[in-house]
Amino acid sequence: MQLRIIFLGTSSAVPTAKRSLSSVAIIRGDEVLVFDTGEGMQRNFLQSGIGTNKSMSIFITHMHSDHVIGLLGFLQTLELFGRDKELRVYGSRELYEFITVNMRLLNFRLSYPLFFKEVSEGIVVKSKEYEVRARLAEHSVTTYSYCLEEYPRPGVFYPEKALALGIPKGKLWHRLQHGEAIEIDGRIINPQDVTSAKRRGRKIGISGDTRPNPHLAEFFRSSDVLIFDSTYGDDHASNAISNMHSTAREAAMLAKEANVHLLILTHFSARYNDTDILLKEASIHDNVIAAEDMMMIEVPYRE
Amino acid sequence: MQLRIIFLGTSSAVPTAKRSLSSVAIIRGDEVLVFDTGEGMQRNFLQSGIGTNKSMSIFITHMHSDHVIGLLGFLQTLELFGRDKELRVYGSRELYEFITVNMRLLNFRLSYPLFFKEVSEGIVVKSKEYEVRARLAEHSVTTYSYCLEEYPRPGVFYPEKALALGIPKGKLWHRLQHGEAIEIDGRIINPQDVTSAKRRGRKIGISGDTRPNPHLAEFFRSSDVLIFDSTYGDDHASNAISNMHSTAREAAMLAKEANVHLLILTHFSARYNDTDILLKEASIHDNVIAAEDMMMIEVPYRE
Repeated sequence: MQLRIIFLGTSSAVPTAKRSLSSVAIIRGDEVLVFDTGEGMQRNFLQSGIGTNKSMSIFITHMHSDHVIGLLGFLQTLELFGRDKELRVYGSRELYEFITVNMRLLNFRLSYPLFFKEVSEGIVVKSKEYEVRARLAEHSVTTYSYCLEEYPRPGVFYPEKALALGIPKGKLWHRLQHGEAIEIDGRIINPQDVTSAKRRGRKIGISGDTRPNPHLAEFFRSSDVLIFDSTYGDDHASNAISNMHSTAREAAMLAKEANVHLLILTHFSARYNDTDILLKEASIHDNVIAAEDMMMIEVPYRE
Repeated sequence: MQLRIIFLGTSSAVPTAKRSLSSVAIIRGDEVLVFDTGEGMQRNFLQSGIGTNKSMSIFITHMHSDHVIGLLGFLQTLELFGRDKELRVYGSRELYEFITVNMRLLNFRLSYPLFFKEVSEGIVVKSKEYEVRARLAEHSVTTYSYCLEEYPRPGVFYPEKALALGIPKGKLWHRLQHGEAIEIDGRIINPQDVTSAKRRGRKIGISGDTRPNPHLAEFFRSSDVLIFDSTYGDDHASNAISNMHSTAREAAMLAKEANVHLLILTHFSARYNDTDILLKEASIHDNVIAAEDMMMIEVPYRE
């Protein structure tokens, strides 16, 4: 199953020549999960070619303009492009008010169904193959971090074990490979008789705007990819504290503590034209990159 | 006095790779007048280098997202850049609600004073050197077209006439040049005794979204520059009628009838990658260009 991350906006507070405001899309097979919708994200979304009528969920971390405003134009653009599938939106009660009040003031309706769910800590979405969980972050307004986590996959199938047990190649193999027990000649064969142990799914974490803290390190533990607030460098570490953001170094320390595989820095203050200094300061973690608008990352299975 | 137009967004409904949503700035000396604030306009505004603490007025034509949404981010960006001067905003009662409700929902305040005035037909702003007037346009929601019109300038000063009347060079000349009557040796000298007739100021018209009609032709009569809704080409003339926009050809016919000097087509449907076809269809007017994002036009005095 393909799992791909596309950054639709990587600047904090104000857009720059190269960076739109916060938004990231995760494409998992035929599904799209969008985290935050900063102003200008619809432009990058359209350029990305993701498609406007996919199964789609939007998760908002918090009610600050640079994470939310783009939602209004995005909702209408999906409509203009003929969307008819339900769109699921997850966020605070204020987000629901933001949508409904602005639909009235800006004179628009939607042709597709809009499903809204208020977010609280815990499981936000439980689908057949993954779940999305939320955890309170530490910012100046109520903010949620999110994790997308796939359920464990069936183990590696060993054909030689199946043949030794007298199971003919075909449908029965297929069922065992997908974790089902079978019966053959009155015997029950369990998947673990012919496969390795279940393999872990992939996990992607998204911090939203936040200070680093141990709860979040726990929440993001063993993520394949962690996308973390890196608004500032060491030169503005005091701003990170007063504005309740993180420095790139703090993001890296948390990622290291949480045993994260790949850390992606994002949400850069517009003062950092060049993110090299931030990458350098984050080098305590040995696998770190800086997000760019329209950057695409494939997330492979790691076992 | 310098008078300059900068296009900050020229697409209708959805942004394209090259075009943000509707917004145009007029820079007149030290003042900035912004007409509409479509999503993404703040990015172009910042790139333009106009300056965030100028005397500034924002005029909104109507409450459709592609003309309004960018205002929320723009207001906050002006704040982040340290604006302290009053900002004047002109639009409908719904615009005021849009600003205040979203300030609450998106948790922001402004450090600078915000002056708001509800727009109705007639004079919207009367300044020392120009006025801005509004006229109802013809669109699916209440929409105003705007004109910025400079007052007539004093006529050309003829030094030989002044000398012939015995007026010494210096302060008295200056006062006559600026339209003041003076007294010398008991005689009253009027400006028109030593100058040509007053010269017309410059006039810029902005249509907003609208069908063309004779009232607007009258409103825009003799504009130096007219920026007019040209959403469609002849191939979608029926959409222009049903969606209450104009075709490029209709914009040109109106501009010709109104004796407009330069017509600038804008607000293009995203289907027109190339505006050449629209320019061709507008060739009934002999001085037409197609707007592009960040295009800058100087508006000279024409007499």
